[in-house]
Amino acid sequence: MRTEGFAAADLTEDDFLGGKVRIRQPIDGYRAGTDPVLLAASVEALAGQSVLELGCGAAPALCCLGVRLPGLVLHGLELQPGYASLGRENLERNGLQGTIWQGDIADPPAQMKAQNFDHVIVNPPYFEGGKRVGAEDNGREIALSGTTSLHTWVKTATKRLKPRGYVTFIQRAERLPELMSSMTQYVGSLELLPLLPRAGRPPRLILLRGRKDGRADFRFHSPQVIHEGASHTEDGKRYKAPFQAILGAGAALPFSA
Amino acid sequence: MRTEGFAAADLTEDDFLGGKVRIRQPIDGYRAGTDPVLLAASVEALAGQSVLELGCGAAPALCCLGVRLPGLVLHGLELQPGYASLGRENLERNGLQGTIWQGDIADPPAQMKAQNFDHVIVNPPYFEGGKRVGAEDNGREIALSGTTSLHTWVKTATKRLKPRGYVTFIQRAERLPELMSSMTQYVGSLELLPLLPRAGRPPRLILLRGRKDGRADFRFHSPQVIHEGASHTEDGKRYKAPFQAILGAGAALPFSA
Repeated sequence: MRTEGFAAADLTEDDFLGGKVRIRQPIDGYRAGTDPVLLAASVEALAGQSVLELGCGAAPALCCLGVRLPGLVLHGLELQPGYASLGRENLERNGLQGTIWQGDIADPPAQMKAQNFDHVIVNPPYFEGGKRVGAEDNGREIALSGTTSLHTWVKTATKRLKPRGYVTFIQRAERLPELMSSMTQYVGSLELLPLLPRAGRPPRLILLRGRKDGRADFRFHSPQVIHEGASHTEDGKRYKAPFQAILGAGAALPFSA
Repeated sequence: MRTEGFAAADLTEDDFLGGKVRIRQPIDGYRAGTDPVLLAASVEALAGQSVLELGCGAAPALCCLGVRLPGLVLHGLELQPGYASLGRENLERNGLQGTIWQGDIADPPAQMKAQNFDHVIVNPPYFEGGKRVGAEDNGREIALSGTTSLHTWVKTATKRLKPRGYVTFIQRAERLPELMSSMTQYVGSLELLPLLPRAGRPPRLILLRGRKDGRADFRFHSPQVIHEGASHTEDGKRYKAPFQAILGAGAALPFSA
């Protein structure tokens, strides 16, 4: 595992939200794509509320959320010290204040356990540890496949919610049954938003939100389509207007379109 | 509860699959709409295979399936004797052979427990007992809201599967978390097909299929749209071509469109 710090030559600086957010991240490690941006865009938080991200990496989701909704109290937990340190740097670089703890989801630091949050957001590893051919860089491997079960991510996330607080996961569609079974054990008022890469295609990603002490019926929201066109042609690389606004200008992604 | 038999004056005879299937059913009781037809259309069974429907009512799903795929060995279980008797009559009326047992999902008859099936299909009550304002007719009330938990429907259905057999549920989208959590306990290779009433709308119904001893990843299929148009206008009553073929001519409804 990478421990503390990356050399400058190992880092790139990348634009998110059309340049409203800039993120330094390792060239070879786990690199943020659109998923943390979509997660951040889906959070309906109010100024003054607290947000915790579990497994925040270099903090692209926290930065996108903090820039879109000023006045939030931002927190992150990250296992790998090099990423935790980059996350702190990225918050500062984007004019945001926040706290990033280094620690394990399965055994979080005491300062984190002493607090509860209005929102907890999670973009956990997409593959189960051991199920996937290993990536060469160990930091990327941990970020992508992890060794912590999805159930543990859900348990830790929901434990840290204030009463009536919201937890939101973004995850590969393949893991919905596992994620949903865990979520139903700890929170209510579940809401599912499938994201289809193109019209007529199966979803690749899902957003699943729950509420502490929620008692509303499950809501299966209308699936939203990310790209124009029916295939990955020149035309098919274009985002549909709402996703162009989310990814390129920092718009929100409401569960109900 | 209605016990044995309906008077002829209490029954209507209704066309399904464009008249390929005719079903006698009570005027005032639970009346089959499109849901059992969609369930039957989704079953990918081969001639010679056995099928069990739990809670088959007057057997519209078994009749639609048997007419679409000749050579199946059809079975049903129905709690209410009047409906079980109508189910037997409807099978015969549609030129089909089959067995319908009268009995309780929570304590099925010994003859049923002595057998396993290639396919089990279920269109369980859509509301939880007690959660819904009661319908006046008790037969309809039992068919719509039931007193048996969804978990019991799943447990009984999956217990009666042959190795590698398929179980398919049609259910309201609101109950997906409960249904999926139960299904993951007994079967694998889950597949979800959401049915959207119109493009851009949330699904009202979902089909969820699992396989005994299945080990494939969960598949979240591309949602399918039932009606043309964006609202329930004159134009919006029209079915899209695949659903016109399913409902009006007995076509199949594959999970992968």
